[in-house]
Amino acid sequence: MNVASFFPENIKAALKNIPPGEWIPELPEDCIRLHCGYPAPALVPDKELKAAVASLLEEERDLPLHYIGSPNILKLKEQIKKRLEERGISVSEEELLITSGACQAIDLIARIILDEESIVAVESPTYMEALEIFQNYTKHLISIPVDKHGLQTDVLEEILAERKRNGLAQPRFLYTIPTFQNPTGTTMTAERRQHLLELADSYNFLIVEDDAYGELSFYKNLPTLKAMDKMSRVLHIGSFSKIVAPGMRIGWIAGAREIIHASAWFKKDLNHPFAQATMAVYLANTDFEAKLLTLRDTYRGKCAVLLSALEQYLPESASWYVPEGGYFVWMKISGVDTSKMLAAALAEGVSYIPGKYFFMNQADGTEFLRLSFSYEDEKEIAEGIRRLGRVVEAGL
Amino acid sequence: MNVASFFPENIKAALKNIPPGEWIPELPEDCIRLHCGYPAPALVPDKELKAAVASLLEEERDLPLHYIGSPNILKLKEQIKKRLEERGISVSEEELLITSGACQAIDLIARIILDEESIVAVESPTYMEALEIFQNYTKHLISIPVDKHGLQTDVLEEILAERKRNGLAQPRFLYTIPTFQNPTGTTMTAERRQHLLELADSYNFLIVEDDAYGELSFYKNLPTLKAMDKMSRVLHIGSFSKIVAPGMRIGWIAGAREIIHASAWFKKDLNHPFAQATMAVYLANTDFEAKLLTLRDTYRGKCAVLLSALEQYLPESASWYVPEGGYFVWMKISGVDTSKMLAAALAEGVSYIPGKYFFMNQADGTEFLRLSFSYEDEKEIAEGIRRLGRVVEAGL
Repeated sequence: MNVASFFPENIKAALKNIPPGEWIPELPEDCIRLHCGYPAPALVPDKELKAAVASLLEEERDLPLHYIGSPNILKLKEQIKKRLEERGISVSEEELLITSGACQAIDLIARIILDEESIVAVESPTYMEALEIFQNYTKHLISIPVDKHGLQTDVLEEILAERKRNGLAQPRFLYTIPTFQNPTGTTMTAERRQHLLELADSYNFLIVEDDAYGELSFYKNLPTLKAMDKMSRVLHIGSFSKIVAPGMRIGWIAGAREIIHASAWFKKDLNHPFAQATMAVYLANTDFEAKLLTLRDTYRGKCAVLLSALEQYLPESASWYVPEGGYFVWMKISGVDTSKMLAAALAEGVSYIPGKYFFMNQADGTEFLRLSFSYEDEKEIAEGIRRLGRVVEAGL
Repeated sequence: MNVASFFPENIKAALKNIPPGEWIPELPEDCIRLHCGYPAPALVPDKELKAAVASLLEEERDLPLHYIGSPNILKLKEQIKKRLEERGISVSEEELLITSGACQAIDLIARIILDEESIVAVESPTYMEALEIFQNYTKHLISIPVDKHGLQTDVLEEILAERKRNGLAQPRFLYTIPTFQNPTGTTMTAERRQHLLELADSYNFLIVEDDAYGELSFYKNLPTLKAMDKMSRVLHIGSFSKIVAPGMRIGWIAGAREIIHASAWFKKDLNHPFAQATMAVYLANTDFEAKLLTLRDTYRGKCAVLLSALEQYLPESASWYVPEGGYFVWMKISGVDTSKMLAAALAEGVSYIPGKYFFMNQADGTEFLRLSFSYEDEKEIAEGIRRLGRVVEAGL
């Protein structure tokens, strides 16, 4: 029987967007992984989480293993509020929802705000999972370019003004990663942040601020959009994936209570008491500000190694942005199709993600690629870039 | 700013269905909890899960804390296949999706099958969360009554035949808990199961079989609908919530590969490596068949205590179904509004869930209530029913 005949039309259409394969093929053994946005293994607190589970279950027995029961689930919300305060954001209980990572947060927001007619504005390039999620809801995505100072709000303004002149609908929201963006590593300037908020007011749209990398600054940090938001237009997404461990699957949405109320209603995987209570105990037992200093030092060092290896090994045809935090360096190689080059890179023993996957119009990404300095250690990073340099030189 | 103005019409409509309060109000201290479908605390393997985390993280370090990496995530699928085989179901890798509990499984299926025009058939009464979920997608729910032999398939047939005569659309799927149903505790007979499958073929609809309680049989067990399903019409949902621990949030869907493929695409909370790898290690270290015998013995004993207390303490006006497994006993008290009686019961120190919440048309549930024997120990159960008897007598 053809069960697919039961899918409604919008689901059938969304399923057509499923990419045919993975972003990168299976890696050869000993490949240096510059593709993957995983935290550094040495910074993932496996011992501390083991201790957290032990003390949690010794103390509370079955409580964190039921649907509700552990007081630590509530304590986690307090811990997240503390993280938000560090980002200049103060929220009440009703303005905060714990999610299964940033991905679920993006999906829930899309779920409650978008229908098939809705317009969404995204950065170009942007987080590939977000592109996939939005296209499950609507075909109407507008791409706004990013340069080394982040989202080009002047281009956004032109587009909005032209849509207005032409009587076209405006976006329901703009999705942005203003700080240490994925994939470009860029940070939106303070002026552009202010400009973006003004545009949201003038043209009446919401802003979804994905701050997954926001605490990983190498130097100083700018105020978040949510901290500058006087009109409750910003839905702020955070996550422990990049600063503790993605396998815990804990993120959050901070925003207007109507948004949180609706998101909570459509979030049908319920709470995750075991993971959430474990995280709460881990955080209670950790000097997290000290931990963050270690994270920042480590990633700053790794990034410096990657950048200096790029200077050393890459030819003139390659250029890149210098990030001030986060996990990623975005590179352009003039005249090269980075998708085609990937097989040669993997054969040489180094991986990256071809730039095209981060664009709505994949052709815009042909010459780009994303490098990540988060996962491998400094020695491997330098060796990986040496290999990449060889591949690029050979192709020229 | 009114952010709610950004919600599409279907979301606004769904939000109107949010119940104003909880199913039961805050419990007084020392209340005997006969409302809650939690496993017995003594049967929740907190020590074993603590040991599982310790051995997992000692052996694999950071692997289960990344997005992907622990071989135990794959092993969990093998463990679930073993559980399915015990239910007479054999599936391939591509016919199985791990979810965050049965709730997420129900939501994903609704997500990929239903649109605003779709008809869904549900048992009456049925699992309250399922009713909430379906109403997020469509207003068109059809209730099919349950009696002590489970879903009344003859009534279903009449309804389907009449809809056909009238040229009305048929249900996309029927949602059923055929084994130890929530809330009635009833089990659909083999004849009715066969009849239901024939109806699904004749009238071309899918069957969503929620088997969350299926392994908790006191005596023997009937074949699952999925085991009898020759046409891939059955989407089978299972869970570790009732047999291990709900706080782990692990369930699954077994069904046609198109269904699994689509569900996986719309499941945007990703995998939960820490919880899933922990479960895999726990299962690998556990004689689960022996564990199931203990579960069945314990719940059979508790159920017997509850039933005998009902005989002893409840007046003639009360009647109930005798379950052959699961967590619940469904009771009717003629002439009593169980919602109104709840305050008196809580004041007396015993809780239950008023029957109305399990019905699309809540008025149908006025005289019913759900008792759970899963959570409290035998002594408390007997005392709880003694208290309930006093409340019912006083009200008469």
